[in-house]
Amino acid sequence: MEPVFQNETIKGILSRYRRIWAINHAQSVLGWDMEVNMPKEGILERSVAQGELSVLSQEFILKPDFIELVEKAKGLELNEYERGVVRVLDREIRISKAFPPEFLREVSEVTSQATKAWEEAKKGDDFSKFEPWLDKIIDLAKRAADYLGYEDEPYDALLDLYEEGLRTKEVVGMFDELERELRPLIEKIMEEGKVPREHPLEKEKYEKEQMERVNLWILQKFGFPLGVRSRLDVSAHPFTTEFGIRDVRITTRYEGYDFRRTILSTVHEFGHALYELQQDERFMFSPIAGGVSLGIHESQSRFWENIIGRSKEFAGLIYPVLKENLPFMANYTPEDVYLYFNLVRPDLIRTEADVVTYNLHILLRFKLERMMLNEGVKARDLPELWNEEMERLLGIRPKTYAEGILQDIHWAHGTVGYFPTYSIGTLLAAQYYYHIKRDLNVEELIAQGNFEPIKAWLREKIHRWGSIYPPKELLKKAIGEELDPEYFIRWVKERYL
Amino acid sequence: MEPVFQNETIKGILSRYRRIWAINHAQSVLGWDMEVNMPKEGILERSVAQGELSVLSQEFILKPDFIELVEKAKGLELNEYERGVVRVLDREIRISKAFPPEFLREVSEVTSQATKAWEEAKKGDDFSKFEPWLDKIIDLAKRAADYLGYEDEPYDALLDLYEEGLRTKEVVGMFDELERELRPLIEKIMEEGKVPREHPLEKEKYEKEQMERVNLWILQKFGFPLGVRSRLDVSAHPFTTEFGIRDVRITTRYEGYDFRRTILSTVHEFGHALYELQQDERFMFSPIAGGVSLGIHESQSRFWENIIGRSKEFAGLIYPVLKENLPFMANYTPEDVYLYFNLVRPDLIRTEADVVTYNLHILLRFKLERMMLNEGVKARDLPELWNEEMERLLGIRPKTYAEGILQDIHWAHGTVGYFPTYSIGTLLAAQYYYHIKRDLNVEELIAQGNFEPIKAWLREKIHRWGSIYPPKELLKKAIGEELDPEYFIRWVKERYL
Repeated sequence: MEPVFQNETIKGILSRYRRIWAINHAQSVLGWDMEVNMPKEGILERSVAQGELSVLSQEFILKPDFIELVEKAKGLELNEYERGVVRVLDREIRISKAFPPEFLREVSEVTSQATKAWEEAKKGDDFSKFEPWLDKIIDLAKRAADYLGYEDEPYDALLDLYEEGLRTKEVVGMFDELERELRPLIEKIMEEGKVPREHPLEKEKYEKEQMERVNLWILQKFGFPLGVRSRLDVSAHPFTTEFGIRDVRITTRYEGYDFRRTILSTVHEFGHALYELQQDERFMFSPIAGGVSLGIHESQSRFWENIIGRSKEFAGLIYPVLKENLPFMANYTPEDVYLYFNLVRPDLIRTEADVVTYNLHILLRFKLERMMLNEGVKARDLPELWNEEMERLLGIRPKTYAEGILQDIHWAHGTVGYFPTYSIGTLLAAQYYYHIKRDLNVEELIAQGNFEPIKAWLREKIHRWGSIYPPKELLKKAIGEELDPEYFIRWVKERYL
Repeated sequence: MEPVFQNETIKGILSRYRRIWAINHAQSVLGWDMEVNMPKEGILERSVAQGELSVLSQEFILKPDFIELVEKAKGLELNEYERGVVRVLDREIRISKAFPPEFLREVSEVTSQATKAWEEAKKGDDFSKFEPWLDKIIDLAKRAADYLGYEDEPYDALLDLYEEGLRTKEVVGMFDELERELRPLIEKIMEEGKVPREHPLEKEKYEKEQMERVNLWILQKFGFPLGVRSRLDVSAHPFTTEFGIRDVRITTRYEGYDFRRTILSTVHEFGHALYELQQDERFMFSPIAGGVSLGIHESQSRFWENIIGRSKEFAGLIYPVLKENLPFMANYTPEDVYLYFNLVRPDLIRTEADVVTYNLHILLRFKLERMMLNEGVKARDLPELWNEEMERLLGIRPKTYAEGILQDIHWAHGTVGYFPTYSIGTLLAAQYYYHIKRDLNVEELIAQGNFEPIKAWLREKIHRWGSIYPPKELLKKAIGEELDPEYFIRWVKERYL
């Protein structure tokens, strides 16, 4: 294959970019090691190292001669790969330039203290400990939006950090449709009872080693290159990290019961990992290697988790290996596994939510975040707003802060504007499903354990393009359409009614 | 405790040094991960990242304003900690300045290809594949010595890289004495037979899990802070790495038989790790945190391996846990374990050598390295020179290249002048033993499994001083003496005759 980068200016940019790439590579390894291996008192030195390296990479991004080269490249005639490089770097420079160093330092100090306060507040179910920090976080989010600039409302600026080019009004439209459709749908699903609200498999216990064998069997079926270009490890919260195209690692966790969680986490993270593993290798060391946005990334993980992992055929495929490793499976059928993977019941906790109610949890957070940014709502009002909205949307009301406003770590980390990408991923996954069905018999392939055609489809349509195109353009090229919640609604109806 | 760095210029230096420290921290994590975890195809991206980071750290070391500050500090009135900072950085700057970037690139290319050639040559027992590369390595070593400069002979320049301030003539004197004393001693040990040449325990097989439990038990007895400030992992070649004072990790290996090796490796690496863990925490993030030289480092590992790990009392201490985990131990006594840990027999392979013959292996390499550098000896003559010297020293002659000249990876890595530090460590370990005995009843403490007084002695005399003093000065302060091979000879006589 011919090299994708031909232009001399682009080559000059990329040769300078290599050290930024190397620092990012190191940062990923430091972060992965911290979650997976680090002895606990290593944290002090690790944090200092990470802080120094992030300042360093900022400095290189903002070097005048580097910026000048990128500016120069904007005026040149380039191929689509090269244009991608310029777009990604221009965006990175713009974002890096926007924030004064003092502001970044303030963010880092406030969020690190806010995270500790949040942990204590959650543990003691005492919102007052987190309240002043949440006000500071809201203030920082507003100032961040002001630094970045926006057209319609501050939320636009934050949203764009996580999902390039997405506008708040689009998200409002998306959630309006979801709310209108999902609330009656959930009621109907509950009434009809095609899927149950509970299943005895939720209570069955397992040993870590048993489910590790199952997860490894599944990953092998998926063709995950364990030991060659990837690993499966254990961490408190499952995640995926890429150190490049040839070293992409996922983690899972083993709680000892409710085995669905460890399987679906593993399958979910596999979806993220596949996106990174199936990049065009010619992009190596360049800023266009890697997934383009959080929403598109989440669409990959949700596709594997929801469309494949929760399908009837997948339950059938893994049933024998489950039976081989879990003695209690003798009392259950593949249909049990399927139903257990597809329970629907309103739950107070987002991370416990089923596929159908999940998006309403996101809607709630999106609504509250906008109120903080646009309407001057203060932290003290949020618990009540949260509880009311939860009751309105799902008919249940938190009795503690821990199962309400304090459940997520995101705000303590200063992450505002991030939640919508979870829903975007969920919706897109269903949208891909109806497109891929035009080309492939997905159900039959899952039943056969033949995932190669599905992987090839995803590679061709999405993965191989890395970050060349902004998310919306990528979608247009991949499926000829914009994000459309209609597909997800249709999928829910077909599966759960 | 009051802070050790008071001078403003020093503080300025250290605040600039932080990013160099951070890059070193990252490099250590990347290196550790590569040996312990990395999926095999991750190597390409990992090497590029490591290369970029090492260029980066060189650049920071050689920044004119950084050098200027260090120069300025030389003229100031400083405390001993601050003087240590200046000495270490001045040395780093001097070494970094010495080598032109093209030379470093050449070294990195030649050694990476030489390593591949060495692997093939060793595998196929075909020296001709490595010969041209070894000539190139010799040439690079000579040029490195020229760049660094030296007084008496080129070997001085290389030796100093690994053992600050050590001169070739001192090493010559050391080995002359060792050769004179050890050769008759070995004959006598063989004749008297107080320790055997072979033991049936060498052939006993074990499962990894069994010896893992034994190793963890030993480390716990030693007070190794597993999970808090350290880890034990598995790698092809056992090693220790420090990411700072609070995260020091060791590895071991499990071959499935001859369990002495995994125990003594673990104990050896523990000795290295303890040196790093017992640093003065006020040195954190500074260039004086960490062991001062390879020889002093090796003296710590050898102290734990030879003096403690091979003692009769240690055999007695671990016998119950061995018996609990290894069914075959029922047929052996603690005395068997002691003898098995102390076999003496001439062996062709350095890494298999017993404590007594070990130094002659190093002497051989030292002699050959000097011949290459000073006498124009070429690679093609080396196998024969090796074999003759081996026969002369130990009365055995390699039949293959793999068990002769090709056995070590060091030269392929371009490491010339490094081997003597192994002997220095071995000799110093015995020297400490006679000093520590003046203060503590070492044997009784080992028998009791009470290692805290021994650790405290090592901390007070050596560990807490980090790299403040050059190795010779550190020794003077610690034990009031220079390195003296006499102690080792005495120890060998007392133990093996």
